[in-house]
Amino acid sequence: MKEIIGGVTAAKGFSAGGIHCGVKKSNIDKKDVALIVSDCMCSAAGIYTKNIVKAAPVLLTMNHLKDGKARAIVVNSGNANACAPFDMENAYKMALATADLMNISPEDVIVASTGVIGQTLNIKAIEEGLPKLYKSINKEGFDDAAQAIMTTDLVKKEHAVSFKIGENIVSLGGMAKGSGMIHPNMGTMLCFITTDIAISSEMLKKALIAANKVSFNRVSIDGDTSTNDMCVILANGMANNKPIDSDGEDFDEFLKALTFVCTNFARDIANDGEGATHLITCKVSGAKDEQSAENISKSIISSTLTKAAIFGGDANWGRILCAMGYSGEIFDPEKVDIAFASNDNIVEVCKQGKGLPFDEKLAKSILLEREVIINVTLCEGNKEAVCWGCDMTYDYIRINGDYRT
Amino acid sequence: MKEIIGGVTAAKGFSAGGIHCGVKKSNIDKKDVALIVSDCMCSAAGIYTKNIVKAAPVLLTMNHLKDGKARAIVVNSGNANACAPFDMENAYKMALATADLMNISPEDVIVASTGVIGQTLNIKAIEEGLPKLYKSINKEGFDDAAQAIMTTDLVKKEHAVSFKIGENIVSLGGMAKGSGMIHPNMGTMLCFITTDIAISSEMLKKALIAANKVSFNRVSIDGDTSTNDMCVILANGMANNKPIDSDGEDFDEFLKALTFVCTNFARDIANDGEGATHLITCKVSGAKDEQSAENISKSIISSTLTKAAIFGGDANWGRILCAMGYSGEIFDPEKVDIAFASNDNIVEVCKQGKGLPFDEKLAKSILLEREVIINVTLCEGNKEAVCWGCDMTYDYIRINGDYRT
Repeated sequence: MKEIIGGVTAAKGFSAGGIHCGVKKSNIDKKDVALIVSDCMCSAAGIYTKNIVKAAPVLLTMNHLKDGKARAIVVNSGNANACAPFDMENAYKMALATADLMNISPEDVIVASTGVIGQTLNIKAIEEGLPKLYKSINKEGFDDAAQAIMTTDLVKKEHAVSFKIGENIVSLGGMAKGSGMIHPNMGTMLCFITTDIAISSEMLKKALIAANKVSFNRVSIDGDTSTNDMCVILANGMANNKPIDSDGEDFDEFLKALTFVCTNFARDIANDGEGATHLITCKVSGAKDEQSAENISKSIISSTLTKAAIFGGDANWGRILCAMGYSGEIFDPEKVDIAFASNDNIVEVCKQGKGLPFDEKLAKSILLEREVIINVTLCEGNKEAVCWGCDMTYDYIRINGDYRT
Repeated sequence: MKEIIGGVTAAKGFSAGGIHCGVKKSNIDKKDVALIVSDCMCSAAGIYTKNIVKAAPVLLTMNHLKDGKARAIVVNSGNANACAPFDMENAYKMALATADLMNISPEDVIVASTGVIGQTLNIKAIEEGLPKLYKSINKEGFDDAAQAIMTTDLVKKEHAVSFKIGENIVSLGGMAKGSGMIHPNMGTMLCFITTDIAISSEMLKKALIAANKVSFNRVSIDGDTSTNDMCVILANGMANNKPIDSDGEDFDEFLKALTFVCTNFARDIANDGEGATHLITCKVSGAKDEQSAENISKSIISSTLTKAAIFGGDANWGRILCAMGYSGEIFDPEKVDIAFASNDNIVEVCKQGKGLPFDEKLAKSILLEREVIINVTLCEGNKEAVCWGCDMTYDYIRINGDYRT
């Protein structure tokens, strides 16, 4: 497997683009609608927010993906099209307008939206802009598409890899957005992945669920699970590999690539958390099982006090142990070791549940790195899990104190 | 029932005081040890943090209250005496030093600590200061005691009431501290309540659990359940009422007074949340049962995004509906009404799950009040619950970005 460029059009037979249609009023330079199209019908699978308040495009997409097939994805940013008048009607109109241009069924179009909740979507702007967008899509449109789904994201998020299935070279790439309202609960953001692998929609879904479990579901920015989250993957089969329709070596190879890409997106999202100045990577090891390691790690990266301490460069490990204690998992606090680490330094701060004297200067230098690693060892087994979060900063408050107006 | 002054010494037979012993190094003016003493043995009950990492004084107090009896409470601020070398030994030494002065058993002394986790308690300073503190306690010492348990609290928290049981006048008062690491999970802070009512320790415990359920367990400041939380009540019987040892009118009267006082403390704690500029009171009504109303309300007051919006004076109700949706409770989003209110104004922003056009100026004026009321109606039944929280501000980040150092 090797990393390649090309994002959502890295795989054969995919085109994409992104333009400003007018959903975002403030700035005509800001792209707000993206389109991804496959040359032929794809196996398709999606995972969605577990919030029971689901935005109209999420509900529509769930419906359109029931048959495991799709050919296009249309996405707008700047408006969540959730809890707003005519939301379901407008979601359907986005599918219909795209389908008409491509001369396909609206049921084969996936629709997604991201932005403010509760305001009526400017569907007219999208309908009027779509013909121009459709004309503009091409193999080089991956960057434009990735830009068009950004809201408070500072960085566009694209990854792609190629790998071999038998003798055939397969490509897989994608784009994601996510910066706030991020908390692990299945597909905590928008992510669209395309691949030219030949695979059944059942196996595609299985792979997506497995990759999601160890990537997106292990990210938290602010504990708020959005109404609009989805992650969708399209596989058009143009790599001409022997189609994957069951478990086995080929499936494992594909899952490895998909997990790699999803994990990179998960880290990107945490690193680009609203206002974040640090990516927090929390590894819990020595657990009796992987789920308990994950739950403890999630509790740590979700702790507001721990996040504020990391922002302040304060090695306040007591808050980490405290967050572990209310994770809902049972463990012996007297067996817990905690260390802060960067990629080339480590400082142990807690041994068997008690504070250690430690080099405050070394701790400070580690806490000044962009990526702060928290290593927790439970000494109760040999399972582990890694989760990703970010620090809580003045800028998070600034961004979210006045997002709507 | 009427409100009276006197806090933790409002009830007959209680003395209290608070002095600087040296646990807080930084400022000799800052009181850091409080003592509450009853003239005679009390029925006593406590409730404790559900964090599995419990501070040594919590574990010691749980043990000392097994017999439902106590005579004194000793508390330090400035150090949590949790996860630190010699923590259990030092907690016991606090009980022992107090017991020696009073010539009672250490098992009749309740010990509590609050402050930074993981650093060794300066027990010598407490042992040396206690004789002076013990000499200083008196009927007027309630303010000093309340001050001595403050950490990041800006306001000392005291309430007291008197009411009648039969022909006897009963007094009940207390003091509390709590400002950060506050999340509903049983007794989310320190609170000490004294009363001269005559009541069995079993009925006292029953009342405390019931009052806690609708007060302290409905507060959240930052989602972090502390290692040191406890709420303890002492009842010395000096009001000479017919002792309460079962359910009935007298018990109900007592529970009403206790709930009133605990609810006031709960509101105080939310209002004094670290960095808070608003008390958020969230009432969910029209629920099918009280527990689901409470869970939905808690999810709203705990939502970082909602808290940031209130700080920004932004009527971003979409975040409220979103937080309801991930509360774990099932409800129909299409039946939800949301309004923002102050004590004399109201603005409806969402009707049956969809945004309403509303007067932004009126909304802004409501959101500028110190207490912002969020009214949510589910239209699914007739049960309701109120929870309290606060906004998330720059100052919260400042306070918690560098608390330890």
